[in-house]
Amino acid sequence: MHAITIPEPGGPEALVWAQVPDPEPGEGEVLVDVAASAVNRADVLQRQGFYDPPPGASPYPGLECAGRIAAVGPGVSGWAVGDEVCALLGGGGYAEKVAVPSGQLLPVPAGVDTASAAGLPEVTCTVWSNVFMVAHLRPGETLLVHGGSSGIGTMAIQLAKAVGARVAVTAGSAAKLERCAELGADILINYREQDFVEELRTATDGAGADVILDNMGAKYLEPNVKALAVNGRLAVIGMQGGTKGELNLGALLAKRGAVTATSLRARPPAEKAAIVAAVREHVWPLLSDGRVRPVIDSSFPMPEAPQAHRALDESKHIGKILLTTE
Amino acid sequence: MHAITIPEPGGPEALVWAQVPDPEPGEGEVLVDVAASAVNRADVLQRQGFYDPPPGASPYPGLECAGRIAAVGPGVSGWAVGDEVCALLGGGGYAEKVAVPSGQLLPVPAGVDTASAAGLPEVTCTVWSNVFMVAHLRPGETLLVHGGSSGIGTMAIQLAKAVGARVAVTAGSAAKLERCAELGADILINYREQDFVEELRTATDGAGADVILDNMGAKYLEPNVKALAVNGRLAVIGMQGGTKGELNLGALLAKRGAVTATSLRARPPAEKAAIVAAVREHVWPLLSDGRVRPVIDSSFPMPEAPQAHRALDESKHIGKILLTTE
Repeated sequence: MHAITIPEPGGPEALVWAQVPDPEPGEGEVLVDVAASAVNRADVLQRQGFYDPPPGASPYPGLECAGRIAAVGPGVSGWAVGDEVCALLGGGGYAEKVAVPSGQLLPVPAGVDTASAAGLPEVTCTVWSNVFMVAHLRPGETLLVHGGSSGIGTMAIQLAKAVGARVAVTAGSAAKLERCAELGADILINYREQDFVEELRTATDGAGADVILDNMGAKYLEPNVKALAVNGRLAVIGMQGGTKGELNLGALLAKRGAVTATSLRARPPAEKAAIVAAVREHVWPLLSDGRVRPVIDSSFPMPEAPQAHRALDESKHIGKILLTTE
Repeated sequence: MHAITIPEPGGPEALVWAQVPDPEPGEGEVLVDVAASAVNRADVLQRQGFYDPPPGASPYPGLECAGRIAAVGPGVSGWAVGDEVCALLGGGGYAEKVAVPSGQLLPVPAGVDTASAAGLPEVTCTVWSNVFMVAHLRPGETLLVHGGSSGIGTMAIQLAKAVGARVAVTAGSAAKLERCAELGADILINYREQDFVEELRTATDGAGADVILDNMGAKYLEPNVKALAVNGRLAVIGMQGGTKGELNLGALLAKRGAVTATSLRARPPAEKAAIVAAVREHVWPLLSDGRVRPVIDSSFPMPEAPQAHRALDESKHIGKILLTTE
């Protein structure tokens, strides 16, 4: 098969489409013929040499895919050759075939085309595990989503609205904020022009956010704590603004607040399977009945992964960027 | 009645036993004839002028008491004049009488004398709400308790052992660690002579602590994150080592960890009542059957509160320091 390899870490041109050996499905795994994968920030870090795949994972980038099951390994039940699936991966999505633990498979939802389904596993699993399983967002509460127009952001807005929460977003342009509003966001904050702590405070009558989904890390740690409501929960899932920041525990205590930080990729298979099962139970029905939709920005042929990474770096996209094999 | 007043903030001598007006029980409150109160770190901050009572609370110090119900206000059911009770207070325990919302009352447990019961509400409510309601310590997990010989620490050891957890403690002397061991602590660390991160790592085969109950705040923030196990939860309840510390979100994310900070005093009455109800359900049976015991260091007549505060400042005590009116 072909896959995107990284002979030497570097810029987008480091991604090289090359002939590689086919993977074999092991115990409890299926082999998927990949129709599409999608781009994530972690792929950029891997390309740059900053994020090695976890032990046992494919050496190729790609944390999600969609396609058709080509072979079923020993010890797998409930899945058959020919099933249309999407999957959460430890790596290897940027390839024509990938072996996947069966606990990380999801059916392609009714009414969603296969390529678009490749953009669902990371965003649904990340949002559901953080906003709902860790931070327990409840109906009537306020969720603040940083990067509201990102793949994660566009899914977070929709899922939070679907459960009856109020949603505030930050984004860097009027066009991005407009798309967030179309998806249901109630409070729109342009972080280039406005102070999100102040804007949120005004919009919530001083209460703040019950849950914050944050991709900025250190840079936003202090303002995020200020933006939390009493009993608020800050869920950090990215560190685009650095890793080490000052935490004012006195301010956190005054809020009786919580700061959590998680990633999906490093979790053991059992935890990934539990998240995937929860997503299938809670999110898939919303996708199948059209209340929640994948938000796709653009699609590139997989050999053109360098262009897809350049598009991510430019940060003008709204929603997910796909890579297709066909 | 008499109460300990603070005419001018300052050292222990700022605590002055004086004649003051009797409190009146309001809607939903009872009046308690105080037999004993107990000393907490927050009382020292209040004495120094750094911790004003929350709105509506008594101006006198004292966050817990035990005694007998002297009068029942309107709208109270389930409690009667003459009942022997202890209570979580927003303030006013250092007095001969105090008015208490009825949701913050607990019966004096069977087999516990009334004065000793005055030392139970703060430690049981703090430990239960943080270690169990917030951090969800489970059987088989490891709890690290900083200040294992404190009032909080001695209760945390006993409750964690009662639910089948493993307990590590830090303390500053061999005598304190010996008492922690008698209460059930499995891993004993002298923080003056040992590196608690290293000691805990060795004792847990590299795993670390699933839950940490911390009273040091900023000073321990970095080593506490290092000491956390994967999926570990750091519960900060005190800031004896400062309020602002560096949080390495990358390290926290690698652990998929959580940092929480709470206090009891600032919570609204409904949250206090929910914690008190949970403590009555889960902790009171353990006290009544003797599996968990109050640990009392010493007792001072209430007018001698300055001496009690000096004893707390010297930090040679093990367990609670009481103030009695009789």
